[in-house]
Amino acid sequence: MTQFPNNLSEAIRWLSSFGASADGGVTRTLYSSSWKEAQEALKEWMNNCGLETNYDSIGNLFGRLPAINSSVPSILVGSHVDTVVSGGKYDGAYGIVAAVTALEFLKREYGYPRVNLEVVSLCEEEGSRFPIACSGSGMITGVYSFKDLMGVVDSDGVSLFNAMADVGFGLSEHDNIKRNIQRFIEIHIEQGPSLEKLNKTIGIVQTIVGQKRFRISVRGESNHAGTTLMKWRRDPMQGAVEMIYTLQKMVGACDDHLVATVGQFFVEPNTPNVIPSQIVFTVDVRHPLETALNDFCKHFTSKFQEIAKDKDLDIVIEKWHEVPPVQMDRELNEWVEDICQSNEVSYYHMNSGAGHDAQLFAHICPATILFVPSQGGISHSPQEYTSTSDLETGLKVLIQLLKRLAY
Amino acid sequence: MTQFPNNLSEAIRWLSSFGASADGGVTRTLYSSSWKEAQEALKEWMNNCGLETNYDSIGNLFGRLPAINSSVPSILVGSHVDTVVSGGKYDGAYGIVAAVTALEFLKREYGYPRVNLEVVSLCEEEGSRFPIACSGSGMITGVYSFKDLMGVVDSDGVSLFNAMADVGFGLSEHDNIKRNIQRFIEIHIEQGPSLEKLNKTIGIVQTIVGQKRFRISVRGESNHAGTTLMKWRRDPMQGAVEMIYTLQKMVGACDDHLVATVGQFFVEPNTPNVIPSQIVFTVDVRHPLETALNDFCKHFTSKFQEIAKDKDLDIVIEKWHEVPPVQMDRELNEWVEDICQSNEVSYYHMNSGAGHDAQLFAHICPATILFVPSQGGISHSPQEYTSTSDLETGLKVLIQLLKRLAY
Repeated sequence: MTQFPNNLSEAIRWLSSFGASADGGVTRTLYSSSWKEAQEALKEWMNNCGLETNYDSIGNLFGRLPAINSSVPSILVGSHVDTVVSGGKYDGAYGIVAAVTALEFLKREYGYPRVNLEVVSLCEEEGSRFPIACSGSGMITGVYSFKDLMGVVDSDGVSLFNAMADVGFGLSEHDNIKRNIQRFIEIHIEQGPSLEKLNKTIGIVQTIVGQKRFRISVRGESNHAGTTLMKWRRDPMQGAVEMIYTLQKMVGACDDHLVATVGQFFVEPNTPNVIPSQIVFTVDVRHPLETALNDFCKHFTSKFQEIAKDKDLDIVIEKWHEVPPVQMDRELNEWVEDICQSNEVSYYHMNSGAGHDAQLFAHICPATILFVPSQGGISHSPQEYTSTSDLETGLKVLIQLLKRLAY
Repeated sequence: MTQFPNNLSEAIRWLSSFGASADGGVTRTLYSSSWKEAQEALKEWMNNCGLETNYDSIGNLFGRLPAINSSVPSILVGSHVDTVVSGGKYDGAYGIVAAVTALEFLKREYGYPRVNLEVVSLCEEEGSRFPIACSGSGMITGVYSFKDLMGVVDSDGVSLFNAMADVGFGLSEHDNIKRNIQRFIEIHIEQGPSLEKLNKTIGIVQTIVGQKRFRISVRGESNHAGTTLMKWRRDPMQGAVEMIYTLQKMVGACDDHLVATVGQFFVEPNTPNVIPSQIVFTVDVRHPLETALNDFCKHFTSKFQEIAKDKDLDIVIEKWHEVPPVQMDRELNEWVEDICQSNEVSYYHMNSGAGHDAQLFAHICPATILFVPSQGGISHSPQEYTSTSDLETGLKVLIQLLKRLAY
């Protein structure tokens, strides 16, 4: 007979066994066999906890604790079941097992609620296998449509629809998987060092920051590193380096909320004794205020143009990703704050620099996301860790919030 | 019957047919079949021109016009037969065919010389197949020894000695292939834009610049691009960019002869939304004066250390290549200058920013290298080009120099 977890720590360990990698991490990309095994195991566990389970047609898994009058809309609570390649045990997983544990507890202690309480194990958030992120919450909320999934293929050329069919799901053009949701609540690891550095246990997210990502291509003229005097060079490395150096100075002059990262940098031909012909690099910029984000991006891109012109280099600036900032629900956050105060749990009002499913749900209903500390700020790594005590505190706050909302 | 070239342009075209690539360039790496075909064809051509040919045991090909008293040492004239992958028709090849053409002319016009005149088609200079450059001239001059070639393998894992054996050559530990050489003269394309920009035909090289190449590894801490505030980052990209920006400023404050190039740049993990954990980049620095080169390198490396310390980054600076500047022979250069003046050929005293076989020969005898213009300064490319008129002028100067030296 299947052995189900008895507490939160056990549940985290148990769920991480589906897709466990040799390095101690977890690889559970969308529609892989370990992904399917995890969803099936969660379904059994939810059933065992007395929840009514069902999948929608793209593989989001729901576990309902029905209201006495079940015609009312649901409060949805959960997170995503997929992971990055060689990710950690907590990212996404914690939000699901905390929700199941909370509903099991609430049912046992208080019986059936006034409104439906529903756990969701969202099929996908990371964008690790297919070049689309938050497809689970995107489809439930109608922010994404059938067309957004069409033609999407992974790096092996497998289409998202074929991968979906391989694990027994299927979406047709006229399927409607949008749901009537009253509120959405997510609990998640912070994936940053703020809570740990400030010695706080619960992060109450005000805003999920807006993001813009750019690809900057700088073209010059490749030449011999020995025979071309400096004054005769059109070296894109010189241009790119001045751009990134200037970007850093500009970031330094902004408020603390602005972050800008150059994470990717390619050189052509990338040979020690050859002046490069082309540099391509990315700039990822984030800020919780849309105007601040827009202003900064306008400013730095025009500065990049200037530097290129000054150095006689060709430049192409492409914006390939853009998400506006999203506000979390103020009323939900006030309740969380009140619960933390009543229970003497330390908390911190903060922004999320990372994207989350909660920002999709915020388009259709009051939504929020709570954080627990990430040790060393580490995530997307086998080293990802949150202490049992912090996990338990997060669960306690979640339970009390759901109790207030649904009973 | 084999058809041999009748003039310099024909000879360039003919030699470029061995290893011709679809893009109009030439690929003739050491000990490849096209390399062997080229050496064999040159041998036949040399024989046909009345030169006495022989190979040494590593595949350097010699064609001798013997002196009346053949016990005197030789004046060696030539260049290298190997090319980079998808290189041009002129680099190396011009120096060989000009030498053969010159000796054939001298024999026809003036008969046997006072000292041996010997063409050399050096087996290797580019370092394109194996990670060793100038192995042909290095072995003839004794600058390299048997041990330097031991254990050298190409990127397919083929050892240099096996590749050598495959085309019929072989060096054993006690072979002595050093030669008694009176003078070495090379003519070569400039591989830079100076002669063209200054509208001069002959470059008389004073110094082949010294080079140092460094590998700089900067380590920080990889983290989430959204959740890590700027003040909490240890981003090696920020450090590397400030270093290279500072390097450029330092180069700008030096004389025109100093060149510094960052041609290679690697990022770990190289993902747009991840703060890098490590950057590795190269710095190639060249100058004709040893003290200036040493001072500059000392200065910039200590500045890099400072920047790393200031940004709490780990840095490792490795010098992986070092060649001191080498003076070309003043007397030979004075004769060349005199010949140019007598023939109303425009000339320019310059340095070579690229390494050449002549710098190996300079260790054992008076040596020099002459340049003809490279159109657009382009080399190591199918677009490499020098006009027939410039090729012919270079040949004329070479013939007159050899006439003065050997008759």
